Amino acid sequence: MERPFVFINSAMSADGKISTKERKQVKISGSFDFDRVDALRAGSDAVMVGIGTVIADDPSLTVKSEKRQIERKQAGLEENPVRVVVDSNAKIPLDADIFKKGEGRRIVIVSGSASSEKLRQLEDVATIIIAGEDKVDLAAAMEELRKTGINRLMVEGGATLNWGMLSNGLVDEVYTFIGNLIIGGNTSPTFVDGEGFTEKEIMRLDLFEAEGMEEGILLKWKVLPCY
Amino acid sequence: MERPFVFINSAMSADGKISTKERKQVKISGSFDFDRVDALRAGSDAVMVGIGTVIADDPSLTVKSEKRQIERKQAGLEENPVRVVVDSNAKIPLDADIFKKGEGRRIVIVSGSASSEKLRQLEDVATIIIAGEDKVDLAAAMEELRKTGINRLMVEGGATLNWGMLSNGLVDEVYTFIGNLIIGGNTSPTFVDGEGFTEKEIMRLDLFEAEGMEEGILLKWKVLPCY
Repeated sequence: MERPFVFINSAMSADGKISTKERKQVKISGSFDFDRVDALRAGSDAVMVGIGTVIADDPSLTVKSEKRQIERKQAGLEENPVRVVVDSNAKIPLDADIFKKGEGRRIVIVSGSASSEKLRQLEDVATIIIAGEDKVDLAAAMEELRKTGINRLMVEGGATLNWGMLSNGLVDEVYTFIGNLIIGGNTSPTFVDGEGFTEKEIMRLDLFEAEGMEEGILLKWKVLPCY
Repeated sequence: MERPFVFINSAMSADGKISTKERKQVKISGSFDFDRVDALRAGSDAVMVGIGTVIADDPSLTVKSEKRQIERKQAGLEENPVRVVVDSNAKIPLDADIFKKGEGRRIVIVSGSASSEKLRQLEDVATIIIAGEDKVDLAAAMEELRKTGINRLMVEGGATLNWGMLSNGLVDEVYTFIGNLIIGGNTSPTFVDGEGFTEKEIMRLDLFEAEGMEEGILLKWKVLPCY
């Protein structure tokens, strides 16, 4: 199977949370880190999020720096990387900021259970990839993305998509910015939610970079192959 | 109110989990970190855990290094710091390793809802502190610990006690060892569970040390006063 190089980038609190129990996005990092994330986006062929993140945060996922937009265009690319949403049941609102803001391609990855009427509506604003029956088959979806020329994919959460990608062995590197705050809560979304690994399944990483920043620390991990 | 200097020490995965969804303790850190934790214990007047940790892991919380045991004795101290369990309903088994292993004082902190018969049994193996009506009043308990001469208290989890201590403003420093693994799971215990802060309540930290180690990285945070 050929898939893109995949990395997850996320900001989390010192206790591993990515938002509060009310799913409220919290400012975890500062302007220096926002700029780092913008550079990561500009250097990627595509940026991907799960439908939960779209519904909770309605992100545009555009490249914010004008300089980087221009550099991309000068390199023959679109201003923004392809924006990809994993959305098994095609629940994404047609007026989501991902569709409204910025230029560039959008892809919505759905499963066979998505309503064909919604898919017809979505076709006006995005390319549709159908992968999997009841829920998105992420491995198959990665193959499709690769076929469309996406070689470098940035995953920007949320907790459920991170779990899906990691547990299916589809991630090469993980970057976590750990901010100087505690959120707490046994229902607050964490960096990786989903079903969770059992003791025997636990996934190993290798820390290859740690960089203290204004309001926390950035950790870069390689995902080790299973053995 | 006079309370001890309080720090929490915990090992967590790169996604903030302290055990698997089955509450199985996982080896998150290596021998170098175990020795660090042993030194922290030996340098504390007391080590405290919640009843959930006792039931899940049955830790002895003793100082493991013979050298450190001897040093404590030479300094006129008991071999082990006072071992403290927060246990609102006095559910701790009488044959818990905390009672069976090692020398030194034990304290069980209960609430007014604990059965008096169980308390009579516990009195043979531990000092009882009653603080709070239905559940332990941690602030009052800290005052009591201070009165018994405990000036430096190490908290070793779990997720619910960490939340109780932090949310009541009873913690000065937080040390997290972040191990090179992903556990995942929306029900796996995290470093800080409990109710969780709302957006406005979020607690601020200050990172004052980061030290890469064999199998991860140790982060030391100061808890900032609320304002």
